[in-house]
Amino acid sequence: MNDTVLVLNGPNLNLLGRRQPEIYGSATLADVEELCRTTAAEFGLRAECRQSNAEHVLIEAIHEFRVGTAGIVINAGAYTHTSVAILDALNTCEVPVIECHISNVHRREAFRHHSYISAAATAVLAGFGIHGYALAIRHLAHLRAGEG
Amino acid sequence: MNDTVLVLNGPNLNLLGRRQPEIYGSATLADVEELCRTTAAEFGLRAECRQSNAEHVLIEAIHEFRVGTAGIVINAGAYTHTSVAILDALNTCEVPVIECHISNVHRREAFRHHSYISAAATAVLAGFGIHGYALAIRHLAHLRAGEG
Amino acid sequence: MNDTVLVLNGPNLNLLGRRQPEIYGSATLADVEELCRTTAAEFGLRAECRQSNAEHVLIEAIHEFRVGTAGIVINAGAYTHTSVAILDALNTCEVPVIECHISNVHRREAFRHHSYISAAATAVLAGFGIHGYALAIRHLAHLRAGEG
Amino acid sequence: MNDTVLVLNGPNLNLLGRRQPEIYGSATLADVEELCRTTAAEFGLRAECRQSNAEHVLIEAIHEFRVGTAGIVINAGAYTHTSVAILDALNTCEVPVIECHISNVHRREAFRHHSYISAAATAVLAGFGIHGYALAIRHLAHLRAGEG
Amino acid sequence: MNDTVLVLNGPNLNLLGRRQPEIYGSATLADVEELCRTTAAEFGLRAECRQSNAEHVLIEAIHEFRVGTAGIVINAGAYTHTSVAILDALNTCEVPVIECHISNVHRREAFRHHSYISAAATAVLAGFGIHGYALAIRHLAHLRAGEG
Amino acid sequence: MNDTVLVLNGPNLNLLGRRQPEIYGSATLADVEELCRTTAAEFGLRAECRQSNAEHVLIEAIHEFRVGTAGIVINAGAYTHTSVAILDALNTCEVPVIECHISNVHRREAFRHHSYISAAATAVLAGFGIHGYALAIRHLAHLRAGEG
Amino acid sequence: MNDTVLVLNGPNLNLLGRRQPEIYGSATLADVEELCRTTAAEFGLRAECRQSNAEHVLIEAIHEFRVGTAGIVINAGAYTHTSVAILDALNTCEVPVIECHISNVHRREAFRHHSYISAAATAVLAGFGIHGYALAIRHLAHLRAGEG
Amino acid sequence: MNDTVLVLNGPNLNLLGRRQPEIYGSATLADVEELCRTTAAEFGLRAECRQSNAEHVLIEAIHEFRVGTAGIVINAGAYTHTSVAILDALNTCEVPVIECHISNVHRREAFRHHSYISAAATAVLAGFGIHGYALAIRHLAHLRAGEG
Amino acid sequence: MNDTVLVLNGPNLNLLGRRQPEIYGSATLADVEELCRTTAAEFGLRAECRQSNAEHVLIEAIHEFRVGTAGIVINAGAYTHTSVAILDALNTCEVPVIECHISNVHRREAFRHHSYISAAATAVLAGFGIHGYALAIRHLAHLRAGEG
Amino acid sequence: MNDTVLVLNGPNLNLLGRRQPEIYGSATLADVEELCRTTAAEFGLRAECRQSNAEHVLIEAIHEFRVGTAGIVINAGAYTHTSVAILDALNTCEVPVIECHISNVHRREAFRHHSYISAAATAVLAGFGIHGYALAIRHLAHLRAGEG
Amino acid sequence: MNDTVLVLNGPNLNLLGRRQPEIYGSATLADVEELCRTTAAEFGLRAECRQSNAEHVLIEAIHEFRVGTAGIVINAGAYTHTSVAILDALNTCEVPVIECHISNVHRREAFRHHSYISAAATAVLAGFGIHGYALAIRHLAHLRAGEG
Amino acid sequence: MNDTVLVLNGPNLNLLGRRQPEIYGSATLADVEELCRTTAAEFGLRAECRQSNAEHVLIEAIHEFRVGTAGIVINAGAYTHTSVAILDALNTCEVPVIECHISNVHRREAFRHHSYISAAATAVLAGFGIHGYALAIRHLAHLRAGEG
Repeated sequence: MNDTVLVLNGPNLNLLGRRQPEIYGSATLADVEELCRTTAAEFGLRAECRQSNAEHVLIEAIHEFRVGTAGIVINAGAYTHTSVAILDALNTCEVPVIECHISNVHRREAFRHHSYISAAATAVLAGFGIHGYALAIRHLAHLRAGEG
Repeated sequence: MNDTVLVLNGPNLNLLGRRQPEIYGSATLADVEELCRTTAAEFGLRAECRQSNAEHVLIEAIHEFRVGTAGIVINAGAYTHTSVAILDALNTCEVPVIECHISNVHRREAFRHHSYISAAATAVLAGFGIHGYALAIRHLAHLRAGEG
Repeated sequence: MNDTVLVLNGPNLNLLGRRQPEIYGSATLADVEELCRTTAAEFGLRAECRQSNAEHVLIEAIHEFRVGTAGIVINAGAYTHTSVAILDALNTCEVPVIECHISNVHRREAFRHHSYISAAATAVLAGFGIHGYALAIRHLAHLRAGEG
Repeated sequence: MNDTVLVLNGPNLNLLGRRQPEIYGSATLADVEELCRTTAAEFGLRAECRQSNAEHVLIEAIHEFRVGTAGIVINAGAYTHTSVAILDALNTCEVPVIECHISNVHRREAFRHHSYISAAATAVLAGFGIHGYALAIRHLAHLRAGEG
Repeated sequence: MNDTVLVLNGPNLNLLGRRQPEIYGSATLADVEELCRTTAAEFGLRAECRQSNAEHVLIEAIHEFRVGTAGIVINAGAYTHTSVAILDALNTCEVPVIECHISNVHRREAFRHHSYISAAATAVLAGFGIHGYALAIRHLAHLRAGEG
Repeated sequence: MNDTVLVLNGPNLNLLGRRQPEIYGSATLADVEELCRTTAAEFGLRAECRQSNAEHVLIEAIHEFRVGTAGIVINAGAYTHTSVAILDALNTCEVPVIECHISNVHRREAFRHHSYISAAATAVLAGFGIHGYALAIRHLAHLRAGEG
Repeated sequence: MNDTVLVLNGPNLNLLGRRQPEIYGSATLADVEELCRTTAAEFGLRAECRQSNAEHVLIEAIHEFRVGTAGIVINAGAYTHTSVAILDALNTCEVPVIECHISNVHRREAFRHHSYISAAATAVLAGFGIHGYALAIRHLAHLRAGEG
Repeated sequence: MNDTVLVLNGPNLNLLGRRQPEIYGSATLADVEELCRTTAAEFGLRAECRQSNAEHVLIEAIHEFRVGTAGIVINAGAYTHTSVAILDALNTCEVPVIECHISNVHRREAFRHHSYISAAATAVLAGFGIHGYALAIRHLAHLRAGEG
Repeated sequence: MNDTVLVLNGPNLNLLGRRQPEIYGSATLADVEELCRTTAAEFGLRAECRQSNAEHVLIEAIHEFRVGTAGIVINAGAYTHTSVAILDALNTCEVPVIECHISNVHRREAFRHHSYISAAATAVLAGFGIHGYALAIRHLAHLRAGEG
Repeated sequence: MNDTVLVLNGPNLNLLGRRQPEIYGSATLADVEELCRTTAAEFGLRAECRQSNAEHVLIEAIHEFRVGTAGIVINAGAYTHTSVAILDALNTCEVPVIECHISNVHRREAFRHHSYISAAATAVLAGFGIHGYALAIRHLAHLRAGEG
Repeated sequence: MNDTVLVLNGPNLNLLGRRQPEIYGSATLADVEELCRTTAAEFGLRAECRQSNAEHVLIEAIHEFRVGTAGIVINAGAYTHTSVAILDALNTCEVPVIECHISNVHRREAFRHHSYISAAATAVLAGFGIHGYALAIRHLAHLRAGEG
Repeated sequence: MNDTVLVLNGPNLNLLGRRQPEIYGSATLADVEELCRTTAAEFGLRAECRQSNAEHVLIEAIHEFRVGTAGIVINAGAYTHTSVAILDALNTCEVPVIECHISNVHRREAFRHHSYISAAATAVLAGFGIHGYALAIRHLAHLRAGEG
């Protein structure tokens, strides 16, 4: 599993492309996952893509990939702002964690400005559209190559 | 599905009638669902009744009924006050959403005065007992009749 | 007076229909009052309709109808958010009180999210347009019939 | 007017004795005014008693008695907590002002703990029941006798 | 009414000149109104001057002048800081509204730093003494001349 | 002890008359205690006067007089604003407690506006100078006479 | 079920012993559950041990054991700080509830200082390591023996 | 002193059994101290029991027992919420400190939810009635046996 | 310099006319300065116009004109909301200071509602477009003529 | 200039590599600028690198590059948290702006969690070390290629 | 007493040198007092050194030295952050008061950043180790010499 | 540079002696600098005195003296309360930093009670007038002599 990157998408991201495209764009979750697999492959990595609307499924995916992998890219969706449980799961990770948001959350409602997850993330990016996932995987590869 | 109303009840509402009757009254969830079906039928609608203690099950029910239905009546229970994820699911709805609370939440603990869900609801009612569900369905029928 | 419902509208509601129709719709105060009278009559009740821009006139109307009537439907307009005096008047009521807002106040400015009046109301509804008045009267009838 | 004390009661105090007797006791406004007149007379003073539910009537009574009288005893009721306009009226007074509350407002809802009026009052008392009015008038007499 | 400016003064401004002259100066309300009439006349306008201590009278004056006039100059006194109802009335105006304060409210108590009314005003000025009324009318004339 | 009133003065009140006379006046603690004894005697009561700068001495005095006396008049000085321990002691009292402040604390620094003690007091007065002690004792006598 | 104690562990507690041992120690969840069973047996009780990362599974376990058992020991992990739904489930319990935290949450991040659950708990303990579970069960036995 | 546990009770706990029994139960301080001595003896320890209403006496007792003892059980009563000085004293302790509250403070007034002392305690318990003291001593014994 | 008015514009005002014209209008800084010079000349004054994006340059301009001039008109742009240093510079001024904002800052983001500078200004105006500069200079002339 | 990216570094970044390397790493500003130039070249772009400790120099650089360039990468250092003036400058930009922080600011002091600049940025990244600059430039190239 | 400086140390300072030496250093209270006596003597002054863990003893020492001495140097320890009573005692002082903290309290917990005492102090210093006492006495001598 | 102390004065301090002498006294900046040079010389040190109204000039002076000197005495004036950039510069210092304020900032406006700079200072003093600079230099000499 040493060459695997977990790409974890949270609640409502299954609607990507159909949900508020003025905020999230027109790409679908399948597009995101395809992009992740392609980008990972460029660096000799494998992207394991998961999406769930359930907090505990996200927690358990983190548990599964928390050691011995190339890292985690997580877009926890709305749980970003409310889930101490996901924070606690990420706090157990020994691999790098990149927090990723499609939109620039800082330009939206005030309650979206706070992320519980950032405190456990190695790095955070927001507003890059789905290209942000590619940049996140690129950074995990960069860290793995010992350039970080 | 065009004539279907989703009636969605959240956590702990399965205990209705057995739980703090001084707040919630003595009617059971079965009573609520029966009332909803009867009221819907009065207006030529069908009430699809769901209850879950799981946030993701509520989210996924909303996804299922978010377009092409007569609307959603939601009593998200405690998730009303904590779930940005349900808010985000409701934000994707193209049909009207009525937020419904059995008790007058404004007379209870301060943390029950804030609802994340109200920001995505068409209308909100609280304190009408289980009669509130009937009024909510009546309003969806009213909107459907183009009187809204 | 036992069969009378007081329908009390507060400041600026005399402009209904001419004021910010994108928020309040195009119906006028006369339309609201006609709807209330018709709905009340359906249930064998009489709707006494009052509107005032003056806080004390609202208070005194509440005093007049606080006992021995079928209940009060109040849309206190802006006083909802600032008037402890109307709260105190409602606290003296022995009849049910329904707080009614035409728009969904929870989607508007933050200062409209708090209502002093809710703490003394039996039930609260918002966002139903002028149909909300009809639902409120229907609920008073429902309570009077001992179904509440 | 030099020997006149204005006793000013605000909104809902016309219901005294009939309104929440567990908080306000069973004496009526007539009882309060009789007590004030009797107490004033003991000290050779005349009590002018006014009650209004209208903020502007209270303001104008203050204007009328703000100079050249023996002082003002004011129970502004709910306006205590919301009226900067009454504060401003009291700020123009050259005579002593005693703020009087029948109940101990500090044991009630948090919003009743703040008084705008206290900042313009000479002295404040709360929780003495209607006896507080007598103590307030006694103090005005005491100040007038140059003992204050 | 197309050439009329409403000059609206709120609570306690009838005491101008006699009330805290170190803050408000020695000019009286009559002086203010004379200044307004003279300034308006300079620009071919007519100043209609009203003062009331009653919130509802201010609201109703705004209703009367909200369309088809040259604009409104309002010094709402203490209601500036507490009245959502006046804000709502101003929100219905189709003519320009200038909010005017004699003193620089920002140098006074913290509760005077917030104005509900500013959110509905075209422009705001404070601290210009009674000269501020003249500047406000001059600006309405300037806007009317299409120079704004 | 049934006819005894405890008059309890807290920290720094031993300096009365010498400390900030513009706030506290020129009467000394001895004057206050003499006034209390005289006033009590008028009503057939005995005033037991204590002053201490120590929080625990105040607590223990309250313990001593909490049952079977005519009541307690307490000016807890600065401990008013900081002592939950004195609040807890007063919460055990079965006799009436009058909280008394020489100055109008509401016109002073913000931290003096909150009193922990008020929540356990029967009644509160502030700003009456040392005359407030006499009014407080008078009220205890009034309550004892069953007039309260 | 009358002699059964539910021991309920929340999210991430399945990692106990492997997760931040400087905070949580080196004992595993199996160790905790063994300790609970042994301690319960000492008092003639049976410990039913459940762990879940899912909020709804915790809620449903509470529903199952809320009446007719010897009580509930709950370590809700991160949900302690965010779950009103678990609070509501506990509010329906007729048996005693002991809230248990392995670490002293009061020495950690500020958001861990508030527990929604404490408001529905009989008693709360934190910082006792896994020994806290044994003390909690001991207390349930103590209450059952009518010594509480 | 190596086998001694300091049991330290703060202000108003001398009234235990006579003070608000609905909150604190009917056991007296003597009962608590007897329970502590008995429990300590079970583990070959000696309980030194002190109670004081004075903050400095509590501080000095902590100083006396802060090194070379079996630990401290402290119920600081109201000082829990206000005393940084006791926190500082506890911060100097090299022995374990158990913070103990008879009632569940989290179900009471908001100001009782914060404890200065928790930040210096090894562990905290609340709501166990006087049984909590026994559990606390048991835990000190447990820690001393190297099982902690 | 006695007849000179300093007109001081702060950061980003060099872009006036090119920057967010829906907020700031289409006039350029050159237009503003021309208007100021013309208006000043009407009153026999000379307008010295400066603009800088640098906080210290603004401070030093204030130092240069703080005594012996006809006054200062300052639009400190964004520094209005963040600069205590400019406040301190203005606090040293012996000449009148008019704070001027082109847009009505009270209708924009919350952080624009607070001005550090207002506390040191004689008067404040906002929302008058560039006409506000002319009104400000007119007021300085008015004050100089001893009419203020 | 159409192919130029402005890379703008703010206060104290000239010390990079020598300043708190545990937070910022050992690379110097020269290294960052070399990396930016190389990365830009990969995409046929030119990186113009500027660093200044002066707020106004940063503002003026933004003015210079706000239209007609390939975009701006800005690490405003401490001004991120305090400068409304830089926000206002960025608000005038017609080109994309990427906000870049070397460290994960969300894991540091609370005052570093808020960025004024994010509200005007297209996208934000933090915690990627100096690699973040390369990712930011890569994203500008991506947007320019019309892939964004 | 005219040449006497009171050096007053508050709670827990008797443990100096033994308590958290990484914060407070290794000097003892005896060392501090010796340093004070020596420094005072250099300036022809006498240092009266007191330490107490009791708030009232500190208050009474202040009362004793508040007039007619060379000044007071006070390190109130934890009472700095909680004691309005000591503030009130210091407010009665006619001699200069220097507030002294061994550690830089501003780098410690947030509740140590606020000092009630500073509002009554002539000057404040923190973080100078025990040398701060010497600097404080030196300043009192400086003031006494009329150089202040 | 090993024997040099940087004395750094911030915005508006060039006006010292002419600016609000009731707060800052009558000594000028030249007096302060002379005092610093004299005091430094007493200890075999050299005082390098700089003053600037520009934040970046202060930052750059700190950079210049941050290593290999005898320390920094900084009075950042208004930037104390607003500049994270100066905090960051001070955070890079390897030499001791003394924060110095002429007035007791804690007795002034609330926004002057918070210093960003204190978190990076070795020690802080306020209210000593210009004598504070001498005490600060004396302390740097003391630290250099290894007595700190």
